[in-house]
Amino acid sequence: MDDLQRLRESVLDANLELVRRGLVLYSFGNASGINRERGLVAIKPSGVDYDRMKAEDVVVTDMTGATVDGKLRPSSDLFTHIELYKAFPSIGGVVHTHSEYATSWAQAGLEIPAYGTTHADYFHGPVPVTEALTDEEVGEEYVLNTGLAITRRFRDIDPLAIPAVLVKGHAPFTWGKTPAEAAHNAVILEAVARMAYRTRLLDRECCGVSKHLLDRHYFRKHGANATYGQS
Amino acid sequence: MDDLQRLRESVLDANLELVRRGLVLYSFGNASGINRERGLVAIKPSGVDYDRMKAEDVVVTDMTGATVDGKLRPSSDLFTHIELYKAFPSIGGVVHTHSEYATSWAQAGLEIPAYGTTHADYFHGPVPVTEALTDEEVGEEYVLNTGLAITRRFRDIDPLAIPAVLVKGHAPFTWGKTPAEAAHNAVILEAVARMAYRTRLLDRECCGVSKHLLDRHYFRKHGANATYGQS
Amino acid sequence: MDDLQRLRESVLDANLELVRRGLVLYSFGNASGINRERGLVAIKPSGVDYDRMKAEDVVVTDMTGATVDGKLRPSSDLFTHIELYKAFPSIGGVVHTHSEYATSWAQAGLEIPAYGTTHADYFHGPVPVTEALTDEEVGEEYVLNTGLAITRRFRDIDPLAIPAVLVKGHAPFTWGKTPAEAAHNAVILEAVARMAYRTRLLDRECCGVSKHLLDRHYFRKHGANATYGQS
Amino acid sequence: MDDLQRLRESVLDANLELVRRGLVLYSFGNASGINRERGLVAIKPSGVDYDRMKAEDVVVTDMTGATVDGKLRPSSDLFTHIELYKAFPSIGGVVHTHSEYATSWAQAGLEIPAYGTTHADYFHGPVPVTEALTDEEVGEEYVLNTGLAITRRFRDIDPLAIPAVLVKGHAPFTWGKTPAEAAHNAVILEAVARMAYRTRLLDRECCGVSKHLLDRHYFRKHGANATYGQS
Repeated sequence: MDDLQRLRESVLDANLELVRRGLVLYSFGNASGINRERGLVAIKPSGVDYDRMKAEDVVVTDMTGATVDGKLRPSSDLFTHIELYKAFPSIGGVVHTHSEYATSWAQAGLEIPAYGTTHADYFHGPVPVTEALTDEEVGEEYVLNTGLAITRRFRDIDPLAIPAVLVKGHAPFTWGKTPAEAAHNAVILEAVARMAYRTRLLDRECCGVSKHLLDRHYFRKHGANATYGQS
Repeated sequence: MDDLQRLRESVLDANLELVRRGLVLYSFGNASGINRERGLVAIKPSGVDYDRMKAEDVVVTDMTGATVDGKLRPSSDLFTHIELYKAFPSIGGVVHTHSEYATSWAQAGLEIPAYGTTHADYFHGPVPVTEALTDEEVGEEYVLNTGLAITRRFRDIDPLAIPAVLVKGHAPFTWGKTPAEAAHNAVILEAVARMAYRTRLLDRECCGVSKHLLDRHYFRKHGANATYGQS
Repeated sequence: MDDLQRLRESVLDANLELVRRGLVLYSFGNASGINRERGLVAIKPSGVDYDRMKAEDVVVTDMTGATVDGKLRPSSDLFTHIELYKAFPSIGGVVHTHSEYATSWAQAGLEIPAYGTTHADYFHGPVPVTEALTDEEVGEEYVLNTGLAITRRFRDIDPLAIPAVLVKGHAPFTWGKTPAEAAHNAVILEAVARMAYRTRLLDRECCGVSKHLLDRHYFRKHGANATYGQS
Repeated sequence: MDDLQRLRESVLDANLELVRRGLVLYSFGNASGINRERGLVAIKPSGVDYDRMKAEDVVVTDMTGATVDGKLRPSSDLFTHIELYKAFPSIGGVVHTHSEYATSWAQAGLEIPAYGTTHADYFHGPVPVTEALTDEEVGEEYVLNTGLAITRRFRDIDPLAIPAVLVKGHAPFTWGKTPAEAAHNAVILEAVARMAYRTRLLDRECCGVSKHLLDRHYFRKHGANATYGQS
């Protein structure tokens, strides 16, 4: 199996993980992956049902968005994915869903506070929300501008330390070193968003974990001193 | 298979889609379709269990509500469906459910604001709520009057641009070019209602997407310049 | 199959319907039925797992609560059931669950308002909540006193017009002409409680349907002029 | 089968019960058990998927946390478990999850009030929340200090009368006489947390059950005069 086929398989798997975890309705959502050496992005085709999607349906494009291989039209969110790959050299996979709790936070225009250790295990700080796009940005280059709004918001944030964002009035994007990790982070984000929603409704004044606890949990699972799992 | 049989099959399919998507409890809900050339409406029978419903159980009536073909009694909501078909010449299918989140908005008497792009992809503005029926309207012609309350509310709205309504104190109706599309819109409406509920609870002052974003998303999926899906 | 065996089967079925509809956790909940001619009550055994319960495990007692037939101990709520059968001569089945939304209303000590037509189709007015039991009532005869608190609350209510109650700080009881109907009403009550919960959170000032609409929906499904279903 | 193998099997079963009841996402959560005579603790391995976990993967350690038997690394929460076994001589199993509703209460830093009889059947008073750990405590000995924060909170509480705690900003721990009972209590805690969440949202002033009712329900299921179940 060549590189491109492997990438397609991993992108298909990431898309199907979204279905298995109940994050998508009908054909909503999309996952992609990148081959940095060859400068190629593999992404879900637009509007195709998940239950009949095959690896060969995954569309391969170059970094300008031109299709290099595949018969179907790529996801309509392609240019957001490409912008994230350009701005975040450390990532290898991107996922977009309208998962319901994360989307509710995005619609409310509120960042998800770091209310607890579940959050801190994955996100080293609040999950940020972009600024609303201007009327001009919601034009011809809307999809690209969505990417730019995200990368602008991450100007001072390490994208691997907080591998998720809420696009205001829209929905979340997540990412990771691989398509599988991006999908995993989408699942975790939704669980964190559910718990944060309920925490906020229990007590609107609630202020989240301390910096020490945030660091302790985050670095338990990430970085050179991680102690979690078998390794 | 003749026209009528095809209509019955599509109406059965639309009814079963409501079950598959968890929108109905017991025998709640009903879907119908219309054959405009022949002036015939096919609708779910009243109070029959979904798991033993067959295409031949679907009842066919004329536009006065008189049964033309079928042995069972039609859905008790038949006259609301007929009124919608009369007032909205562009539609081919109607669905009524008591799906729980949309019904909660209907019970609260609140329209569902266009809080985000998921909404805008399907509904080109808030999902409206009818006025409460007067005591006189809740009489002999209650079911018909429900239809009239809906069409009155849509006097200045294109029913295909906002293919859903909340009947105050009751529940939603949705529609579309076909019974399948009406059922699809019922599923989407419920997802949108769930997210809007949580958005409102996160921030009651939340004001929804801009007109530009609403247009951008709606016209991405609808009309001559749609760019979504394979076509 | 004799009368008693038939009663046992119907009580088993009602208990299993609670499981199928997700109303019970572990061995929570219980359903019973009565044979009025013989003055015998059949009820779920106490603390037995649903997945291995058989008709012969159902315990048969007389109206004093003495076991007449069966090897197991009857449900610890037996004396509440018996009190309801004594006070409500028109009913043939009783169900008790801790279904989560109805229980949340019971815990909050709030009646469930008639917010919409789904409610009105089954309950001809708000679902009432009992007064809290006094410290004396929460003694030796606690289970019986629970029944008395319910029947006191229904002094001026027709139990078949509102076949459900919330015991304050505890959970719901429902009933019906048969054990199957009592279980059906328990399922509907939970759905109605879910929607009422969300309606209240959307708008705490929300005041419910008009008397006319309440009557219209209730009598559509009940009484001499019912028009719903095949008959 | 020797003692140790039996302990491992019971710990595996308790871990899998968490999965069956929907309390864990991915490899979250962990259950352990203790053999008091031999001073050995058996605990879930760290970061292993539930669906391929076998009894031999369960790690056996002594009371200092040193692995006595097993090839995998023990759960990263081991030292919290050990601290609970040391401080609570009456318990035989411990469970930790991030079950979502209990975790939301923990994140809000609020104890779960005894709002109803479902709570009282299992917990003889509010489910307490620990104090936040100081910055010093969130250091090298963080996991141990989590255990100490719990046992400090239980200085005046019988751990078998209230077999659950919320660690502030983190998540719940539960326990019981056996690993199975600890897992059972984790499931009940989550159900109780769900209902308490909704009760609080229905009425923030709601004050819970009386001491008499709390006692009545608790002692119906526990202690010398228990009347529930087959005995």
